[in-house]
Amino acid sequence: MTASLQLIAVPGIPMVQPGDDLADLIVEGMATAGLTLQDHDVVVIAQKIVSKAEGRFVDLTTIVPSPRAEAIAREVQKDPRLVEIILSESRRIVRSGRDVLIVEHRLGFVMANAGVDQSNVAEPQGRQLALMLPQDPDASAARLQKELEQRSGSTLAIVINDSFGRPWRLGTVGVAIGCAGLPALLDLRGHPDLFGRSLQVTVVAFADEIAAAASLLMGQADEARPVVVLRGLPRHGQPQPAGSMIRPPGEDLFR
Amino acid sequence: MTASLQLIAVPGIPMVQPGDDLADLIVEGMATAGLTLQDHDVVVIAQKIVSKAEGRFVDLTTIVPSPRAEAIAREVQKDPRLVEIILSESRRIVRSGRDVLIVEHRLGFVMANAGVDQSNVAEPQGRQLALMLPQDPDASAARLQKELEQRSGSTLAIVINDSFGRPWRLGTVGVAIGCAGLPALLDLRGHPDLFGRSLQVTVVAFADEIAAAASLLMGQADEARPVVVLRGLPRHGQPQPAGSMIRPPGEDLFR
Repeated sequence: MTASLQLIAVPGIPMVQPGDDLADLIVEGMATAGLTLQDHDVVVIAQKIVSKAEGRFVDLTTIVPSPRAEAIAREVQKDPRLVEIILSESRRIVRSGRDVLIVEHRLGFVMANAGVDQSNVAEPQGRQLALMLPQDPDASAARLQKELEQRSGSTLAIVINDSFGRPWRLGTVGVAIGCAGLPALLDLRGHPDLFGRSLQVTVVAFADEIAAAASLLMGQADEARPVVVLRGLPRHGQPQPAGSMIRPPGEDLFR
Repeated sequence: MTASLQLIAVPGIPMVQPGDDLADLIVEGMATAGLTLQDHDVVVIAQKIVSKAEGRFVDLTTIVPSPRAEAIAREVQKDPRLVEIILSESRRIVRSGRDVLIVEHRLGFVMANAGVDQSNVAEPQGRQLALMLPQDPDASAARLQKELEQRSGSTLAIVINDSFGRPWRLGTVGVAIGCAGLPALLDLRGHPDLFGRSLQVTVVAFADEIAAAASLLMGQADEARPVVVLRGLPRHGQPQPAGSMIRPPGEDLFR
């Protein structure tokens, strides 16, 4: 049998508002195209709509930046109120420079601006909204898994993805900031290769590869396709949250 | 219309030997499954079989390590002959530690062991073979594109992928070390978002996301599926090699 994998962008997802039920929107979106979720589908959901549904907005006009935020804002040439929000979502600054503020997010992700985003967010008159990451993306994924399984009657896995930059390479790639129902990492260490030699280091960031694959269909410049279903992935091992992909600082040569 | 994408692992690719014609093997593998390459398919080929076909083997028993290689080998606990080969493929060492040797490959990739691999390589009696990256993976991709287009009569794109580790996150992900017929980076800067605000930084590492997606089907512990076809990707802009994804050292905060 030929191994294959299908990615389907769920059509008809509307602009998401705080309080929206994403599971309902996804099941309804699938139904408009005559599709249903099936056992072992992996549903990849863009961080932005999870954050919106969870109401993770901050109104910049309500923020009084600290002296530290003011100083950093001058260095990186950003709005000091935005910097204040970024710092409040971060454990520490990893690198900073003009237009660049790379931090360790409170959940351990090393990323630009702690994921705080001013783009693609509707701004009612007088407010200036920024959008933060979900409070606990692994918990969001687990909740969405439960809700989607209830509504679809299928066994599912969930990945919440975002786009991260990387050192050394240009361009962003999709990464998993939350997942449920699948192992974030596939540990192939110790499996023999074709000639019996043990593979040396082969822990695969399975959830990140899923996130990147889905990102190919999601696009960037609009939110028309914030949900992508992967169908046909081989089943693997025990579920494990996306947080387990964060390299322990003590083992990290680049902190 | 529902946007969708299909990934097909090309069946029947045999163990690749130096001098093998990969384009023939791919076309024949597709044919055994009753499949043909179609216009705009992206053919993702594992680095390992490109290196093997190009005969990029070194026999460790022929290597006399330099004093520098001996010293580094003691620090990182690797075979000094292997370290000698790694150094010969590298511009400089980025980080080293026990079991870890992260270098800047001569082509600019920051990666473990300069991609030199002892795993999954058949070793005739008395020889100890290691496998290096292709001499010029973008050139290999361009050549494979031409050969596959001639044999299939279709307009194709090619990605040569490898698995790289990353700082801060555990696990490897598929990345593109060579490509042809597609843009490695999609530059969405300046495109308006849904509300007219320009997207701030949205250069997407398109070829890396393709590489990661294909990696999901390739597996790691055997080489049964070293070629994956992506079908249904939207067409984008001017072709651009994978080398263009390497961040210029002067703009890099992590060198």
